[in-house]
Amino acid sequence: MRIDLSFTPHQADEAVLRDKTVVAIDVLRASTTIITALSNGAREVIPVPTVESAVKLSAQLAGDVVLLGGERGGRRIQGFSLGNSPAEYTPERVKGKSIVFSSTNGSQVLANGRYARSLVVCGFVNMALVVRFLRERPGDFILACAGTNGAFSLEDSVCAGMIVHSLLKDGSLEVTLSDGALAAESLYRSHGRNVLKLLQSTQHGKYLQEIGFEGDLKLCASVDSIPVLPQLDGNVIRLKREAERKDITPAVAPS
Amino acid sequence: MRIDLSFTPHQADEAVLRDKTVVAIDVLRASTTIITALSNGAREVIPVPTVESAVKLSAQLAGDVVLLGGERGGRRIQGFSLGNSPAEYTPERVKGKSIVFSSTNGSQVLANGRYARSLVVCGFVNMALVVRFLRERPGDFILACAGTNGAFSLEDSVCAGMIVHSLLKDGSLEVTLSDGALAAESLYRSHGRNVLKLLQSTQHGKYLQEIGFEGDLKLCASVDSIPVLPQLDGNVIRLKREAERKDITPAVAPS
Repeated sequence: MRIDLSFTPHQADEAVLRDKTVVAIDVLRASTTIITALSNGAREVIPVPTVESAVKLSAQLAGDVVLLGGERGGRRIQGFSLGNSPAEYTPERVKGKSIVFSSTNGSQVLANGRYARSLVVCGFVNMALVVRFLRERPGDFILACAGTNGAFSLEDSVCAGMIVHSLLKDGSLEVTLSDGALAAESLYRSHGRNVLKLLQSTQHGKYLQEIGFEGDLKLCASVDSIPVLPQLDGNVIRLKREAERKDITPAVAPS
Repeated sequence: MRIDLSFTPHQADEAVLRDKTVVAIDVLRASTTIITALSNGAREVIPVPTVESAVKLSAQLAGDVVLLGGERGGRRIQGFSLGNSPAEYTPERVKGKSIVFSSTNGSQVLANGRYARSLVVCGFVNMALVVRFLRERPGDFILACAGTNGAFSLEDSVCAGMIVHSLLKDGSLEVTLSDGALAAESLYRSHGRNVLKLLQSTQHGKYLQEIGFEGDLKLCASVDSIPVLPQLDGNVIRLKREAERKDITPAVAPS
Protein backbone atom coordinates (compact mmCIF):
# COMPACT_ATOMS: atom_id res chain seq x y z
CA MET A 1 0.00 0.00 0.00
CA ARG A 2 1.57 3.24 -1.14
CA ILE A 3 0.18 6.45 0.30
CA ASP A 4 0.58 9.63 -1.72
CA LEU A 5 -0.54 13.04 -0.63
CA SER A 6 -1.19 16.42 -2.20
CA PHE A 7 -1.38 19.46 0.02
CA THR A 8 -3.20 21.62 -2.53
CA PRO A 9 -5.44 20.99 -5.55
CA HIS A 10 -2.68 22.38 -7.82
CA GLN A 11 -0.54 19.40 -6.93
CA ALA A 12 -3.26 16.89 -7.77
CA ASP A 13 -5.05 17.88 -10.92
CA GLU A 14 -7.44 15.75 -12.95
CA ALA A 15 -4.61 13.84 -14.61
CA VAL A 16 -2.92 13.00 -11.30
CA LEU A 17 -6.16 11.73 -9.72
CA ARG A 18 -7.44 9.83 -12.77
CA ASP A 19 -8.06 6.14 -11.98
CA LYS A 20 -6.74 6.53 -8.44
CA THR A 21 -8.38 5.86 -5.11
CA VAL A 22 -8.73 9.36 -3.66
CA VAL A 23 -9.55 10.64 -0.19
CA ALA A 24 -10.78 14.24 -0.51
CA ILE A 25 -10.17 16.32 2.62
CA ASP A 26 -11.53 19.79 3.34
CA VAL A 27 -11.99 19.87 7.09
CA LEU A 28 -13.08 23.53 7.24
CA ARG A 29 -15.73 23.01 6.07
CA ALA A 30 -16.84 21.35 2.83
CA SER A 31 -16.02 17.78 3.90
CA THR A 32 -17.79 18.20 7.21
CA THR A 33 -20.79 19.89 5.61
CA ILE A 34 -21.21 17.21 2.93
CA ILE A 35 -20.87 14.43 5.51
CA THR A 36 -23.45 16.16 7.75
CA ALA A 37 -25.90 16.73 4.88
CA LEU A 38 -25.84 13.10 3.76
CA SER A 39 -25.97 11.80 7.31
CA ASN A 40 -29.06 13.97 7.85
CA GLY A 41 -30.86 12.42 4.92
CA ALA A 42 -29.93 14.50 1.90
CA ARG A 43 -30.35 12.33 -1.18
CA GLU A 44 -27.17 13.53 -2.83
CA VAL A 45 -24.70 16.38 -3.03
CA ILE A 46 -23.71 17.58 -6.49
CA PRO A 47 -20.43 19.50 -6.28
CA VAL A 48 -19.87 22.19 -8.91
CA PRO A 49 -16.89 24.49 -9.34
CA THR A 50 -18.59 27.85 -9.91
CA VAL A 51 -21.58 29.81 -8.67
CA GLU A 52 -22.76 30.13 -12.27
CA SER A 53 -22.73 26.38 -12.84
CA ALA A 54 -24.59 25.86 -9.54
CA VAL A 55 -27.37 28.21 -10.59
CA LYS A 56 -27.55 26.75 -14.08
CA LEU A 57 -27.69 23.16 -12.84
CA SER A 58 -30.30 23.84 -10.18
CA ALA A 59 -32.51 25.50 -12.80
CA GLN A 60 -32.35 22.30 -14.86
CA LEU A 61 -33.35 20.09 -11.94
CA ALA A 62 -36.82 19.80 -10.42
CA GLY A 63 -37.63 22.75 -8.16
CA ASP A 64 -38.60 21.71 -4.68
CA VAL A 65 -36.22 18.81 -4.20
CA VAL A 66 -33.17 20.90 -5.06
CA LEU A 67 -31.30 23.21 -2.71
CA LEU A 68 -28.38 25.47 -3.52
CA GLY A 69 -25.57 25.43 -0.96
CA GLY A 70 -22.09 26.84 -0.64
CA GLU A 71 -19.90 29.81 0.15
CA ARG A 72 -17.52 32.39 -1.15
CA GLY A 73 -15.21 34.10 1.32
CA GLY A 74 -16.71 31.78 3.95
CA ARG A 75 -20.18 33.37 3.63
CA ARG A 76 -23.36 32.03 2.02
CA ILE A 77 -23.61 32.89 -1.67
CA GLN A 78 -26.31 35.42 -2.45
CA GLY A 79 -29.53 33.70 -3.49
CA PHE A 80 -28.45 30.32 -2.12
CA SER A 81 -30.59 28.56 0.53
CA LEU A 82 -27.64 27.22 2.48
CA GLY A 83 -24.09 28.31 3.24
CA ASN A 84 -21.16 26.07 4.14
CA SER A 85 -21.96 25.67 7.82
CA PRO A 86 -22.61 22.03 8.83
CA ALA A 87 -25.12 23.31 11.40
CA GLU A 88 -27.41 24.55 8.62
CA TYR A 89 -27.76 21.12 7.07
CA THR A 90 -30.38 19.82 9.52
CA PRO A 91 -32.67 16.85 8.76
CA GLU A 92 -35.60 19.28 8.51
CA ARG A 93 -33.91 21.21 5.74
CA VAL A 94 -32.09 18.56 3.75
CA LYS A 95 -34.00 15.26 4.03
CA GLY A 96 -34.66 13.84 0.56
CA LYS A 97 -33.07 16.84 -1.17
CA SER A 98 -30.47 17.09 -3.87
CA ILE A 99 -27.98 19.75 -2.90
CA VAL A 100 -26.05 21.58 -5.60
CA PHE A 101 -22.96 22.66 -3.73
CA SER A 102 -20.07 25.02 -4.46
CA SER A 103 -17.30 26.00 -2.08
CA THR A 104 -14.02 27.80 -2.64
CA ASN A 105 -11.57 25.01 -1.88
CA GLY A 106 -13.45 21.72 -1.53
CA SER A 107 -15.16 21.97 -4.91
CA GLN A 108 -11.81 22.15 -6.66
CA VAL A 109 -10.60 18.87 -5.17
CA LEU A 110 -13.90 17.18 -6.00
CA ALA A 111 -13.77 18.51 -9.56
CA ASN A 112 -10.18 17.28 -9.97
CA GLY A 113 -11.30 13.85 -8.74
CA ARG A 114 -14.12 13.35 -11.21
CA TYR A 115 -12.18 10.66 -13.09
CA ALA A 116 -10.87 8.96 -9.98
CA ARG A 117 -11.46 5.22 -9.71
CA SER A 118 -13.00 5.86 -6.33
CA LEU A 119 -13.27 9.03 -4.25
CA VAL A 120 -14.45 9.29 -0.65
CA VAL A 121 -15.04 12.47 1.34
CA CYS A 122 -13.17 12.70 4.64
CA GLY A 123 -13.18 14.95 7.68
CA PHE A 124 -12.30 14.36 11.29
CA VAL A 125 -15.99 13.53 11.83
CA ASN A 126 -15.88 10.29 9.80
CA MET A 127 -12.23 9.34 10.32
CA ALA A 128 -12.78 5.76 11.52
CA LEU A 129 -14.92 4.84 8.53
CA VAL A 130 -12.41 6.28 6.06
CA VAL A 131 -9.59 4.34 7.70
CA ARG A 132 -11.66 1.17 7.68
CA PHE A 133 -12.51 1.68 4.00
CA LEU A 134 -8.79 2.02 3.15
CA ARG A 135 -7.79 -0.89 5.32
CA GLU A 136 -10.37 -3.22 3.76
CA ARG A 137 -9.26 -2.57 0.21
CA PRO A 138 -5.49 -2.60 0.39
CA GLY A 139 -4.09 -0.78 -2.58
CA ASP A 140 -2.43 2.53 -3.32
CA PHE A 141 -4.29 5.76 -2.70
CA ILE A 142 -3.84 9.50 -2.59
CA LEU A 143 -4.88 11.88 0.16
CA ALA A 144 -6.02 15.04 -1.63
CA CYS A 145 -6.14 18.06 0.66
CA ALA A 146 -8.21 21.06 -0.39
CA GLY A 147 -5.97 23.66 1.25
CA THR A 148 -7.10 27.25 1.56
CA ASN A 149 -7.22 29.57 -1.43
CA GLY A 150 -4.64 27.48 -3.26
CA ALA A 151 -2.24 27.35 -0.31
CA PHE A 152 -1.38 24.71 2.27
CA SER A 153 -3.78 24.30 5.18
CA LEU A 154 -2.64 22.77 8.43
CA GLU A 155 -6.02 21.30 9.41
CA ASP A 156 -6.39 19.28 6.20
CA SER A 157 -2.81 18.06 6.49
CA VAL A 158 -3.22 16.95 10.10
CA CYS A 159 -6.46 15.16 9.18
CA ALA A 160 -4.60 13.36 6.38
CA GLY A 161 -1.81 12.59 8.83
CA MET A 162 -4.31 11.01 11.21
CA ILE A 163 -5.23 8.55 8.45
CA VAL A 164 -1.58 7.73 7.80
CA HIS A 165 -0.95 7.32 11.52
CA SER A 166 -3.89 4.93 11.91
CA LEU A 167 -2.77 2.77 8.99
CA LEU A 168 0.85 2.68 10.17
CA LYS A 169 -0.34 1.46 13.56
CA ASP A 170 -1.97 -1.52 11.87
CA GLY A 171 0.93 -3.95 11.86
CA SER A 172 -0.69 -6.15 9.21
CA LEU A 173 -0.30 -3.60 6.42
CA GLU A 174 2.84 -2.95 4.42
CA VAL A 175 2.79 0.80 3.96
CA THR A 176 5.06 2.96 1.78
CA LEU A 177 4.85 6.69 2.27
CA SER A 178 5.56 9.54 -0.11
CA ASP A 179 7.41 12.51 1.41
CA GLY A 180 4.07 14.29 1.71
CA ALA A 181 2.38 11.42 3.55
CA LEU A 182 5.37 11.11 5.87
CA ALA A 183 5.26 14.85 6.59
CA ALA A 184 1.50 14.75 7.27
CA GLU A 185 1.98 11.97 9.78
CA SER A 186 4.63 14.06 11.54
CA LEU A 187 2.26 17.03 11.55
CA TYR A 188 -0.48 14.87 13.04
CA ARG A 189 1.88 13.89 15.84
CA SER A 190 2.89 17.52 16.42
CA HIS A 191 -0.54 19.15 16.13
CA GLY A 192 -3.23 16.46 16.29
CA ARG A 193 -3.67 15.87 19.98
CA ASN A 194 -6.36 18.50 20.42
CA VAL A 195 -8.22 18.92 17.17
CA LEU A 196 -10.43 21.79 18.32
CA LYS A 197 -7.41 23.74 19.52
CA LEU A 198 -5.76 23.02 16.19
CA LEU A 199 -8.74 24.34 14.22
CA GLN A 200 -8.86 27.45 16.38
CA SER A 201 -5.20 28.15 15.62
CA THR A 202 -4.97 27.68 11.84
CA GLN A 203 -5.24 30.49 9.30
CA HIS A 204 -8.64 29.47 8.01
CA GLY A 205 -9.91 28.56 11.48
CA LYS A 206 -9.01 32.05 12.70
CA TYR A 207 -10.74 33.62 9.74
CA LEU A 208 -13.93 31.62 10.34
CA GLN A 209 -13.94 32.72 13.98
CA GLU A 210 -13.54 36.33 12.89
CA ILE A 211 -16.62 36.15 10.66
CA GLY A 212 -18.77 34.46 13.28
CA PHE A 213 -18.46 30.73 12.60
CA GLU A 214 -16.66 29.65 15.77
CA GLY A 215 -19.46 27.14 16.42
CA ASP A 216 -18.57 25.32 13.19
CA LEU A 217 -15.07 24.61 14.46
CA LYS A 218 -16.48 22.43 17.23
CA LEU A 219 -18.58 20.46 14.77
CA CYS A 220 -15.64 20.00 12.42
CA ALA A 221 -13.36 18.93 15.28
CA SER A 222 -15.60 16.13 16.62
CA VAL A 223 -13.63 13.04 15.65
CA ASP A 224 -15.88 10.12 14.59
CA SER A 225 -19.09 11.96 15.43
CA ILE A 226 -20.76 11.22 12.05
CA PRO A 227 -20.16 7.64 10.93
CA VAL A 228 -21.03 7.83 7.24
CA LEU A 229 -18.88 7.55 4.13
CA PRO A 230 -19.80 9.82 1.22
CA GLN A 231 -18.51 8.65 -2.13
CA LEU A 232 -18.37 10.37 -5.49
CA ASP A 233 -20.34 8.40 -8.09
CA GLY A 234 -20.18 10.02 -11.50
CA ASN A 235 -20.69 13.68 -10.66
CA VAL A 236 -22.76 13.04 -7.56
CA ILE A 237 -21.82 12.34 -3.94
CA ARG A 238 -23.93 9.76 -2.13
CA LEU A 239 -23.49 7.62 0.94
CA LYS A 240 -21.47 4.51 0.40
CA ARG A 241 -22.88 2.82 3.43
CA GLU A 242 -24.07 3.83 6.82
CA ALA A 243 -22.65 2.29 9.92
CA GLU A 244 -23.98 2.31 13.42
CA ARG A 245 -21.84 4.31 15.79
CA LYS A 246 -21.45 1.33 18.06
CA ASP A 247 -19.71 -0.58 15.25
CA ILE A 248 -17.07 2.06 14.78
CA THR A 249 -13.60 1.29 15.99
CA PRO A 250 -11.89 4.56 16.88
CA ALA A 251 -9.29 5.33 14.20
CA VAL A 252 -6.79 6.47 16.78
CA ALA A 253 -6.88 4.98 20.22
CA PRO A 254 -7.27 7.66 22.90
CA SER A 255 -3.99 8.16 24.66
CA MET B 1 7.58 39.95 9.87
CA ARG B 2 5.18 37.57 8.18
CA ILE B 3 6.62 34.32 6.83
CA ASP B 4 4.78 32.60 3.98
CA LEU B 5 5.78 29.34 2.44
CA SER B 6 5.03 27.38 -0.72
CA PHE B 7 5.84 23.69 -0.83
CA THR B 8 5.79 23.46 -4.63
CA PRO B 9 6.28 25.89 -7.54
CA HIS B 10 2.58 25.46 -8.45
CA GLN B 11 1.65 27.21 -5.22
CA ALA B 12 3.92 30.16 -5.88
CA ASP B 13 3.73 31.21 -9.48
CA GLU B 14 5.08 34.41 -11.01
CA ALA B 15 2.10 36.44 -9.75
CA VAL B 16 2.46 35.20 -6.18
CA LEU B 17 6.21 35.95 -6.04
CA ARG B 18 6.04 39.31 -7.83
CA ASP B 19 7.53 42.12 -5.70
CA LYS B 20 8.12 39.78 -2.77
CA THR B 21 11.28 38.89 -0.92
CA VAL B 22 11.79 35.25 -1.88
CA VAL B 23 14.03 32.50 -0.53
CA ALA B 24 14.37 29.81 -3.21
CA ILE B 25 15.12 26.36 -1.79
CA ASP B 26 16.12 23.26 -3.76
CA VAL B 27 18.37 21.35 -1.39
CA LEU B 28 18.84 18.34 -3.72
CA ARG B 29 20.58 19.78 -5.61
CA ALA B 30 20.13 23.01 -7.55
CA SER B 31 20.52 25.36 -4.58
CA THR B 32 23.62 23.56 -3.36
CA THR B 33 25.11 23.42 -6.86
CA ILE B 34 24.54 27.12 -7.56
CA ILE B 35 25.95 28.09 -4.16
CA THR B 36 29.00 25.88 -4.77
CA ALA B 37 29.57 27.24 -8.28
CA LEU B 38 29.52 30.87 -7.18
CA SER B 39 31.59 30.17 -4.11
CA ASN B 40 34.18 28.54 -6.38
CA GLY B 41 34.49 31.63 -8.55
CA ALA B 42 31.85 31.28 -11.25
CA ARG B 43 31.02 34.75 -12.51
CA GLU B 44 27.28 34.09 -12.67
CA VAL B 45 24.67 31.41 -13.04
CA ILE B 46 21.91 32.01 -15.58
CA PRO B 47 18.92 29.79 -14.79
CA VAL B 48 16.73 28.77 -17.72
CA PRO B 49 13.63 26.58 -17.71
CA THR B 50 14.28 24.30 -20.67
CA VAL B 51 17.16 22.48 -22.32
CA GLU B 52 16.33 24.24 -25.59
CA SER B 53 16.58 27.69 -24.03
CA ALA B 54 19.87 26.71 -22.38
CA VAL B 55 21.38 25.68 -25.71
CA LYS B 56 20.02 28.74 -27.49
CA LEU B 57 21.28 31.15 -24.86
CA SER B 58 24.73 29.61 -24.63
CA ALA B 59 25.05 29.89 -28.41
CA GLN B 60 24.39 33.63 -28.15
CA LEU B 61 27.01 34.15 -25.48
CA ALA B 62 30.76 34.15 -26.04
CA GLY B 63 32.11 30.60 -26.32
CA ASP B 64 34.87 29.87 -23.88
CA VAL B 65 33.53 31.71 -20.87
CA VAL B 66 30.18 29.92 -21.01
CA LEU B 67 29.42 26.48 -19.62
CA LEU B 68 26.19 24.53 -19.86
CA GLY B 69 25.09 22.83 -16.66
CA GLY B 70 22.06 20.95 -15.40
CA GLU B 71 20.13 17.71 -15.30
CA ARG B 72 17.06 15.83 -16.33
CA GLY B 73 16.08 12.77 -14.33
CA GLY B 74 19.04 13.60 -12.08
CA ARG B 75 21.59 12.96 -14.83
CA ARG B 76 23.70 15.39 -16.86
CA ILE B 77 21.95 16.59 -19.99
CA GLN B 78 23.49 15.26 -23.19
CA GLY B 79 25.95 17.74 -24.65
CA PHE B 80 26.23 19.73 -21.41
CA SER B 81 29.63 20.17 -19.74
CA LEU B 82 28.30 19.87 -16.21
CA GLY B 83 25.48 18.03 -14.47
CA ASN B 84 23.79 19.01 -11.23
CA SER B 85 26.35 17.60 -8.85
CA PRO B 86 27.95 20.24 -6.62
CA ALA B 87 31.18 18.22 -6.74
CA GLU B 88 31.58 18.95 -10.45
CA TYR B 89 31.61 22.71 -9.96
CA THR B 90 35.26 22.94 -8.88
CA PRO B 91 37.26 26.19 -9.02
CA GLU B 92 39.28 24.70 -11.90
CA ARG B 93 36.17 24.25 -14.01
CA VAL B 94 34.02 27.24 -13.12
CA LYS B 95 36.28 30.15 -12.18
CA GLY B 96 35.33 33.22 -14.21
CA LYS B 97 32.67 31.35 -16.16
CA SER B 98 29.04 32.12 -16.88
CA ILE B 99 27.02 28.98 -16.31
CA VAL B 100 23.76 28.55 -18.17
CA PHE B 101 21.89 26.19 -15.88
CA SER B 102 18.70 24.14 -16.14
CA SER B 103 17.39 21.67 -13.61
CA THR B 104 14.02 19.93 -13.28
CA ASN B 105 12.74 21.54 -10.09
CA GLY B 106 14.99 24.42 -9.10
CA SER B 107 14.73 26.20 -12.44
CA GLN B 108 10.96 26.44 -12.09
CA VAL B 109 11.18 28.25 -8.75
CA LEU B 110 13.84 30.60 -10.11
CA ALA B 111 11.74 31.30 -13.22
CA ASN B 112 8.67 32.01 -11.07
CA GLY B 113 10.76 34.43 -9.01
CA ARG B 114 12.00 36.56 -11.89
CA TYR B 115 9.81 39.51 -10.86
CA ALA B 116 10.49 39.15 -7.14
CA ARG B 117 11.70 42.24 -5.34
CA SER B 118 14.61 40.21 -4.08
CA LEU B 119 15.41 36.51 -4.39
CA VAL B 120 18.17 34.62 -2.61
CA VAL B 121 19.20 31.00 -3.15
CA CYS B 122 19.22 28.84 -0.03
CA GLY B 123 20.39 25.38 0.94
CA PHE B 124 21.56 23.89 4.20
CA VAL B 125 25.08 24.89 3.15
CA ASN B 126 24.47 28.64 3.45
CA MET B 127 21.76 28.61 6.12
CA ALA B 128 23.37 31.11 8.53
CA LEU B 129 23.83 33.74 5.83
CA VAL B 130 20.24 33.42 4.64
CA VAL B 131 18.96 33.78 8.19
CA ARG B 132 21.20 36.78 8.76
CA PHE B 133 20.00 38.37 5.51
CA LEU B 134 16.35 37.96 6.61
CA ARG B 135 17.03 39.15 10.13
CA GLU B 136 18.80 42.29 8.93
CA ARG B 137 15.97 43.40 6.69
CA PRO B 138 12.85 42.79 8.72
CA GLY B 139 9.88 42.54 6.41
CA ASP B 140 7.60 39.87 5.02
CA PHE B 141 9.03 37.12 2.86
CA ILE B 142 8.13 33.84 1.24
CA LEU B 143 10.04 30.57 1.42
CA ALA B 144 9.64 28.99 -2.03
CA CYS B 145 10.43 25.28 -2.04
CA ALA B 146 11.23 23.60 -5.34
CA GLY B 147 9.73 20.23 -4.41
CA THR B 148 10.32 17.20 -6.61
CA ASN B 149 8.57 16.80 -9.95
CA GLY B 150 5.76 19.09 -8.86
CA ALA B 151 5.21 17.33 -5.53
CA PHE B 152 6.16 18.12 -1.95
CA SER B 153 9.74 17.33 -0.92
CA LEU B 154 10.62 16.78 2.70
CA GLU B 155 14.21 18.03 2.46
CA ASP B 156 13.22 21.43 1.07
CA SER B 157 10.51 21.78 3.70
CA VAL B 158 12.84 20.92 6.57
CA CYS B 159 15.40 23.41 5.23
CA ALA B 160 12.67 26.08 5.13
CA GLY B 161 11.65 25.05 8.63
CA MET B 162 15.20 25.54 9.86
CA ILE B 163 15.00 29.17 8.73
CA VAL B 164 11.67 29.65 10.53
CA HIS B 165 13.08 27.99 13.64
CA SER B 166 16.13 30.25 13.66
CA LEU B 167 14.04 33.40 13.30
CA LEU B 168 11.57 32.33 15.99
CA LYS B 169 14.47 31.78 18.37
CA ASP B 170 15.46 35.42 17.91
CA GLY B 171 13.35 37.02 20.62
CA SER B 172 13.74 40.50 19.10
CA LEU B 173 11.61 39.72 16.03
CA GLU B 174 7.84 39.74 15.89
CA VAL B 175 7.08 36.82 13.60
CA THR B 176 3.72 35.78 12.10
CA LEU B 177 3.59 32.39 10.41
CA SER B 178 1.36 31.09 7.65
CA ASP B 179 0.08 27.52 8.10
CA GLY B 180 2.82 26.35 5.73
CA ALA B 181 5.60 28.10 7.65
CA LEU B 182 4.26 26.72 10.93
CA ALA B 183 4.16 23.22 9.45
CA ALA B 184 7.71 23.52 8.09
CA GLU B 185 8.98 24.51 11.51
CA SER B 186 7.29 21.43 12.98
CA LEU B 187 8.87 19.29 10.27
CA TYR B 188 12.27 20.76 11.06
CA ARG B 189 11.82 19.80 14.69
CA SER B 190 10.70 16.27 13.74
CA HIS B 191 13.24 15.57 10.98
CA GLY B 192 16.01 18.18 11.13
CA ARG B 193 18.33 16.86 13.80
CA ASN B 194 20.44 14.82 11.42
CA VAL B 195 20.35 16.42 8.01
CA LEU B 196 22.40 13.74 6.24
CA LYS B 197 20.12 11.01 7.57
CA LEU B 198 17.14 13.07 6.44
CA LEU B 199 18.50 13.43 2.91
CA GLN B 200 19.22 9.71 2.75
CA SER B 201 15.61 8.93 3.68
CA THR B 202 13.58 11.22 1.40
CA GLN B 203 12.11 10.20 -1.94
CA HIS B 204 14.52 12.25 -4.02
CA GLY B 205 17.46 11.43 -1.76
CA LYS B 206 16.82 7.72 -2.25
CA TYR B 207 16.58 8.18 -5.99
CA LEU B 208 19.89 10.05 -6.14
CA GLN B 209 21.56 7.27 -4.17
CA GLU B 210 20.14 4.70 -6.58
CA ILE B 211 21.66 6.46 -9.59
CA GLY B 212 25.05 6.89 -7.96
CA PHE B 213 25.02 10.33 -6.37
CA GLU B 214 25.23 9.34 -2.71
CA GLY B 215 28.30 11.56 -2.36
CA ASP B 216 26.20 14.61 -3.23
CA LEU B 217 23.97 14.04 -0.23
CA LYS B 218 26.89 14.67 2.11
CA LEU B 219 27.76 17.91 0.35
CA CYS B 220 24.13 19.07 0.43
CA ALA B 221 23.77 18.15 4.12
CA SER B 222 26.75 20.16 5.36
CA VAL B 223 25.07 22.97 7.25
CA ASP B 224 26.89 26.31 6.86
CA SER B 225 29.77 24.82 4.92
CA ILE B 226 29.62 27.43 2.10
CA PRO B 227 29.08 30.94 3.46
CA VAL B 228 27.94 32.81 0.36
CA LEU B 229 24.61 34.31 -0.60
CA PRO B 230 23.59 34.03 -4.25
CA GLN B 231 20.98 36.54 -5.35
CA LEU B 232 18.92 36.78 -8.52
CA ASP B 233 19.61 40.05 -10.30
CA GLY B 234 17.50 40.41 -13.42
CA ASN B 235 17.82 36.97 -14.98
CA VAL B 236 21.23 36.24 -13.51
CA ILE B 237 22.35 34.85 -10.16
CA ARG B 238 25.42 36.42 -8.62
CA LEU B 239 26.90 36.59 -5.16
CA LYS B 240 25.36 39.19 -2.94
CA ARG B 241 28.33 39.26 -0.65
CA GLU B 242 30.91 36.90 0.57
CA ALA B 243 31.47 36.38 4.24
CA GLU B 244 34.36 34.78 5.99
CA ARG B 245 33.44 31.54 7.69
CA LYS B 246 34.76 32.79 10.98
CA ASP B 247 32.13 35.53 10.95
CA ILE B 248 29.22 33.17 10.56
CA THR B 249 27.01 32.63 13.53
CA PRO B 250 25.47 29.17 13.31
CA ALA B 251 21.79 29.53 12.40
CA VAL B 252 20.81 26.85 14.84
CA ALA B 253 22.86 26.28 17.94
CA PRO B 254 24.07 22.69 18.21
CA SER B 255 22.05 20.79 20.78
